[in-house]
Amino acid sequence: MVQDVSNPSYIRMHPDDNVVVVANDGGLKAGTVFADGLTMREDTPQSHKVATCDIDGGAPVIRYGVVVGIAKDRIHRGSWVQEKMLHIPPAPDLDAIAAMQPQQYAPLEPLKGYTFEGFRNEDGSVGTMNVLGITTTVNCVEGVVNYAAKRIREELLPKYPNVDGVVALNHAFGCGVAIDAPDTAIPIRTVRNLALNPNFGGTVLVVSLGCEKLQVNRLLEPDPAPFEKHAPFVVTLQDEKHVGFESMVADIMVLAEERLQLLNKRRRETCPVSDLVVGMQCGGSDAFSGMTANPALGFAADLLARAGATVLFSEMSEVRDRVDLMAERAVERKTIEDLVTIMKWNDGYLGRGGADRTANTTPGNKMGGLNNIAEKSMGTLVKSGTTPLMGVINPGDKLPKDHKPGIYFNATPSNDFLCGTLQMAAGMNLHVFTTGRGTPYGLAAIPVIKVSTRTELYNRWPDLIDVDAGPIATGESTIEEKGWELFKLYIEVASGRKKTWAQHWGLNNSIAIFNPGPVT
Amino acid sequence: MVQDVSNPSYIRMHPDDNVVVVANDGGLKAGTVFADGLTMREDTPQSHKVATCDIDGGAPVIRYGVVVGIAKDRIHRGSWVQEKMLHIPPAPDLDAIAAMQPQQYAPLEPLKGYTFEGFRNEDGSVGTMNVLGITTTVNCVEGVVNYAAKRIREELLPKYPNVDGVVALNHAFGCGVAIDAPDTAIPIRTVRNLALNPNFGGTVLVVSLGCEKLQVNRLLEPDPAPFEKHAPFVVTLQDEKHVGFESMVADIMVLAEERLQLLNKRRRETCPVSDLVVGMQCGGSDAFSGMTANPALGFAADLLARAGATVLFSEMSEVRDRVDLMAERAVERKTIEDLVTIMKWNDGYLGRGGADRTANTTPGNKMGGLNNIAEKSMGTLVKSGTTPLMGVINPGDKLPKDHKPGIYFNATPSNDFLCGTLQMAAGMNLHVFTTGRGTPYGLAAIPVIKVSTRTELYNRWPDLIDVDAGPIATGESTIEEKGWELFKLYIEVASGRKKTWAQHWGLNNSIAIFNPGPVT
Repeated sequence: MVQDVSNPSYIRMHPDDNVVVVANDGGLKAGTVFADGLTMREDTPQSHKVATCDIDGGAPVIRYGVVVGIAKDRIHRGSWVQEKMLHIPPAPDLDAIAAMQPQQYAPLEPLKGYTFEGFRNEDGSVGTMNVLGITTTVNCVEGVVNYAAKRIREELLPKYPNVDGVVALNHAFGCGVAIDAPDTAIPIRTVRNLALNPNFGGTVLVVSLGCEKLQVNRLLEPDPAPFEKHAPFVVTLQDEKHVGFESMVADIMVLAEERLQLLNKRRRETCPVSDLVVGMQCGGSDAFSGMTANPALGFAADLLARAGATVLFSEMSEVRDRVDLMAERAVERKTIEDLVTIMKWNDGYLGRGGADRTANTTPGNKMGGLNNIAEKSMGTLVKSGTTPLMGVINPGDKLPKDHKPGIYFNATPSNDFLCGTLQMAAGMNLHVFTTGRGTPYGLAAIPVIKVSTRTELYNRWPDLIDVDAGPIATGESTIEEKGWELFKLYIEVASGRKKTWAQHWGLNNSIAIFNPGPVT
Repeated sequence: MVQDVSNPSYIRMHPDDNVVVVANDGGLKAGTVFADGLTMREDTPQSHKVATCDIDGGAPVIRYGVVVGIAKDRIHRGSWVQEKMLHIPPAPDLDAIAAMQPQQYAPLEPLKGYTFEGFRNEDGSVGTMNVLGITTTVNCVEGVVNYAAKRIREELLPKYPNVDGVVALNHAFGCGVAIDAPDTAIPIRTVRNLALNPNFGGTVLVVSLGCEKLQVNRLLEPDPAPFEKHAPFVVTLQDEKHVGFESMVADIMVLAEERLQLLNKRRRETCPVSDLVVGMQCGGSDAFSGMTANPALGFAADLLARAGATVLFSEMSEVRDRVDLMAERAVERKTIEDLVTIMKWNDGYLGRGGADRTANTTPGNKMGGLNNIAEKSMGTLVKSGTTPLMGVINPGDKLPKDHKPGIYFNATPSNDFLCGTLQMAAGMNLHVFTTGRGTPYGLAAIPVIKVSTRTELYNRWPDLIDVDAGPIATGESTIEEKGWELFKLYIEVASGRKKTWAQHWGLNNSIAIFNPGPVT
């Protein structure tokens, strides 16, 4: 794997760092001498860290200008810095953060003149696709809904050419769960708010069994209006009027066709970029995530914020180790309080299950050079750019109507599928996903743009990765250039002018409902 | 809903009972007089309870000869007994049960001469279907696996007519989870043991991403042999050899075709009924469940046990209130200990989430006359018949090779999808499911026979319900007759001679992995 190269290079993230990261594809051999004289003591894979000076046992290992580990024993200059050599620094004290005060920020320099073509909804939100969503209250109906959705696609959809597709929102929540447990409000509001995602155009259709714990009326709170706008909106399989399987399917198809007629009338119109709600996520991260793809997303997030758009930044267990840096960017005291409250909640949730935020890192993260959650956390955080933090959206909640533009912490697990689903519930209409190790992730109802952290991955997966941020590492591109490239691609994809690779192949992951409560 | 009828009738389960259940479709009106003189004080729906004598406040309400509630205030003879009128009796003390000793049982009267046509596997297990299962280690691969499965079905399956189908075992476990949390052994072994279900014929095919927490080697413990029998058996999407999406799909198809060739050689052969492993479950229960469908299943379970078959009885939160009765049937001390251990574990699991076993009952249960978990529990228990309890299979575990025939408590949540998936992991090759409210439940890789508790449901859902146990309530049939009908139907369905309605329509629920650990 490691090799002789004529141009050994490393990446330093901050002047204070005492480690740098091997940039060359395939890694570097022991004995390699960098231009500044630093000499590798061991074969070291790409994206892994090398010490730039001797680090004493008990001394901090510094990357991004922050402590990402404490050396267990002396680490020599030129050594490959590995997980086993480090203690994890403690997570920031939430009570200390709770005492912080919000900062004054100068207004952002406006970015004007950018628009996209979207489907405007009656509630003011804008869709980037035009999809019939079939909400389900419980897993029991899955077989019937899938059967009906297939028939809708085959028999009805061809008549409604302006509709992009039919998506059955099947999930594992709804019954066999402790529906009144303290944390079960999260999955309930997630199911509700998914139905209200802008890409479904406000035409809610619910299929219910009838006897399940998640009764339809629980979805109507706090406001039944968006559901009742096109009443009737529910097919209940146990309803006495249904005699035989095909009568259930027929009823679903009747309500589906009414909605297809409404959706089919929608046309894309020119909308300001401020109507975008971009959900950001990373999965299968490596040490390049925090140097290439995620900083490019951060730059694009700043552009979006300047243009008045909304950006969702997520992943509680990855933000926990640097939540102090998020709190410093809050413009309101309430945001700091909300951050602390949800992080304490998540600490408790993980603790009850015998885990903590250090359970986050994967084998792939570690193979990719990310030693621990403290290091991974910094890479995650750079996705959020530099603009003020406008608020916290709790898991399953929807962005408030008339919220201020800018970046929000949408508190979700880091699990890709739970995070994507919760961002959909929050109102995301465009998803951007960075990956170092590679994942074919996609969503049926939201365009997902995938960004590789390394060119080696992009070269292997040219028909799965939409943008390669790898050239930032080699100096062939810059964070600013890639940020602008992303920003412009967001507009193209949101306008339906460019398909993502996930859309091209039809690669979709099921939605996944975050239920921190127990099952019965 | 309630009506005048010329033949008002009720059902009494036990001579000691002080409540009976209204049998007539549509319920009965206030003033209705039964043949024995009992007069209804209120309109009472079908399957709900009526007091047969005055019950003082603080006195027990008795059904099935056991206490199913404590009257809050005086309940008058002829009154409709409702949930709000009762306190729930406490669950049995597990420490007292832990002190119990196993009973001596006379050997069962053998039931000989019954066979079915199944697909015998090399490990001695027998399949009732012949299916290519594609195991996934993580949700990330779902889109690629679904794409590949579609192509396998379209391009390869027609060449292998003895293969019933291709099932992608997608699930939400595998990454973004606390993989080393104390309870995460459960989902890991579930994924492993699902791959080894008899209906997949021992031809394991795994699709992995590469960087996920659930690394393939975790599936190989404690014995890699069943996985490695047909090596290579893994396609890893991040493998460097894959250049482009279609190379991943091509690799999956190559391994799939090798397995289709093996599966296609399999032929049904005559097997003793002792090779059946029947998983029992109920969902959407009502007060008739415990009087019609579940006792019929219990009778059939006794027949199966006498014939040397294996029967899986499940649903921890529904058995908790009468676990004493299960413990009384244990033939080994270890079974009592295992019962107590897993019930304590489940109490703790529910408690950590702010719930207990009383969270089990659904709105449909209550509309169906089941007031609380103590009452529901008795209805659940009668499914298990009367034969000795041979052991406990913990969630995700597989029946031990060369286990003794008879009934096992397969400790699972009561959630239908988790229970069915865990019974599949245990080695189930036939599933029978009772329902009072009605559910279109099905599994792609296991035949599911659905049994209605009431004729009214059967008449509404004649093409979803396979067997109607309702005639037991009206006296038109008996538990014994329906038990034999089920036993004989099991043989027909297991032999592939009769399709269930779920198979006819292709109604399938996704598998659902029970992960009691936290997500990150």
